[in-house]
Amino acid sequence: MDARPIGVFDSGLGGLTVLRVLRDRFPHENFVYLGDTARLPYGSKSPQIIRRYSEQNLHFLTQMGVKAVIVACNSASTQMRESEIDGLPLYNVIEPGARAALAASPRKRIGLIGTRATVLSRAYEDEIRRLDPSAEVFTQACPLLVPLAEEGWDGDPVANLIVYRYLQAVMQHQIDVLIMGCTHYPLLEGSISRVTGSSVTLVDSGEAIAQMMASDFKAGRVPAGDASKTGTLKLCVTDAGSSFQEMSRRILGPDAPAVELV
Amino acid sequence: MDARPIGVFDSGLGGLTVLRVLRDRFPHENFVYLGDTARLPYGSKSPQIIRRYSEQNLHFLTQMGVKAVIVACNSASTQMRESEIDGLPLYNVIEPGARAALAASPRKRIGLIGTRATVLSRAYEDEIRRLDPSAEVFTQACPLLVPLAEEGWDGDPVANLIVYRYLQAVMQHQIDVLIMGCTHYPLLEGSISRVTGSSVTLVDSGEAIAQMMASDFKAGRVPAGDASKTGTLKLCVTDAGSSFQEMSRRILGPDAPAVELV
Repeated sequence: MDARPIGVFDSGLGGLTVLRVLRDRFPHENFVYLGDTARLPYGSKSPQIIRRYSEQNLHFLTQMGVKAVIVACNSASTQMRESEIDGLPLYNVIEPGARAALAASPRKRIGLIGTRATVLSRAYEDEIRRLDPSAEVFTQACPLLVPLAEEGWDGDPVANLIVYRYLQAVMQHQIDVLIMGCTHYPLLEGSISRVTGSSVTLVDSGEAIAQMMASDFKAGRVPAGDASKTGTLKLCVTDAGSSFQEMSRRILGPDAPAVELV
Repeated sequence: MDARPIGVFDSGLGGLTVLRVLRDRFPHENFVYLGDTARLPYGSKSPQIIRRYSEQNLHFLTQMGVKAVIVACNSASTQMRESEIDGLPLYNVIEPGARAALAASPRKRIGLIGTRATVLSRAYEDEIRRLDPSAEVFTQACPLLVPLAEEGWDGDPVANLIVYRYLQAVMQHQIDVLIMGCTHYPLLEGSISRVTGSSVTLVDSGEAIAQMMASDFKAGRVPAGDASKTGTLKLCVTDAGSSFQEMSRRILGPDAPAVELV
């Protein structure tokens, strides 16, 4: 039994969709979440800056005494591909997402939507082709989807139209799987699934990472928490200006804790 | 004659719409532009963080030996209201914008659109009411308009629909002037003017600030540059990751200089 928390970080609130899945799957684990809201978004920034900010977030979580760290941000994940740093297990969303996409794609024709940084990095394409050289990947950067998700307009005609505009070209490639390559996008799953239809499977970073963590708990790579206790949650942000508190309640439910400024 | 440059800063590229107007009006002046792209956008951040970043930008420009500084960002302007700092003339967009709006509004019913930070600050409302207590101001935060402007979708049906959605409530108050309270918004002037129609005058931060500077040049508050020379321009950014170079050519014209990372 190891009561140390699991650290999760994102540039802002998108990673809360990952946290929601992880808390649901591992209810006895304690979590610390860091949203780097003072410097969000990462998706339009350079690889060097994203790496530097990610290292600083990792350092903060290390000082909180975490037993593992989840990079719950696709843009940051592209620049943090190590599976451990100084003995601390590190999870990024790329490998789990690539594996989940291949497992769900009989035709091996995979779509990927994400921020500019994620798409330009080619991290998913490289990982998918490493796992299966025969797979084809079709990508589209969607800069409007993050603010759209934060407006809470999922399912609204405006949101449907924007998603349609972005997905049009990718859909013409007869994809059977679409990786939602940004942790904000599950907040637009209504509009996205309306455009893709039921023949396309959506891959969610949170689900993908939870699957990989479950097998690592079993293998003992990460020691499990106290199964007799309900896990705790600490939410930290680097700037209090955004609507983080309200959105955290919308995503995690009304019992989400008060947000702490660090 | 004073050949020192005029400093202009913004969180990113929106301030280029202000720079475009200033270069057009004052062709003999030298300019240095700083886009704080490593930390953009400011519009979703807290007043404290915006103030701190703005002071750092000001410090950078001071070290470049500027003779005046333009805060070409509405979110930053709300937290930088001084008319000078350490003897250096400082221009924010709030007072010029408020004056231009009142001058163009016979009915004194003024609309304001901007980022969340700008709207929440109430800076425009306070300034307008200080100048004319009888004026009424109707505000709307429009978080999607910055990424929409950066996508270059002005005039597109999707852009028209989003602008319509945001402006609907403000338009019902029978405004006769709309302050585009974010320096990105002139990049969406096609869609905005389509929604407001010709009975509403749009106020552009660049035009408003150029008017105030023109009278300050005349009054000698800021010494004029060498009228026998064409002014130079230096473009600096704090992160090279975004599409700043491409957008700067789109806004300033094909002769915009290469962007320097600082």
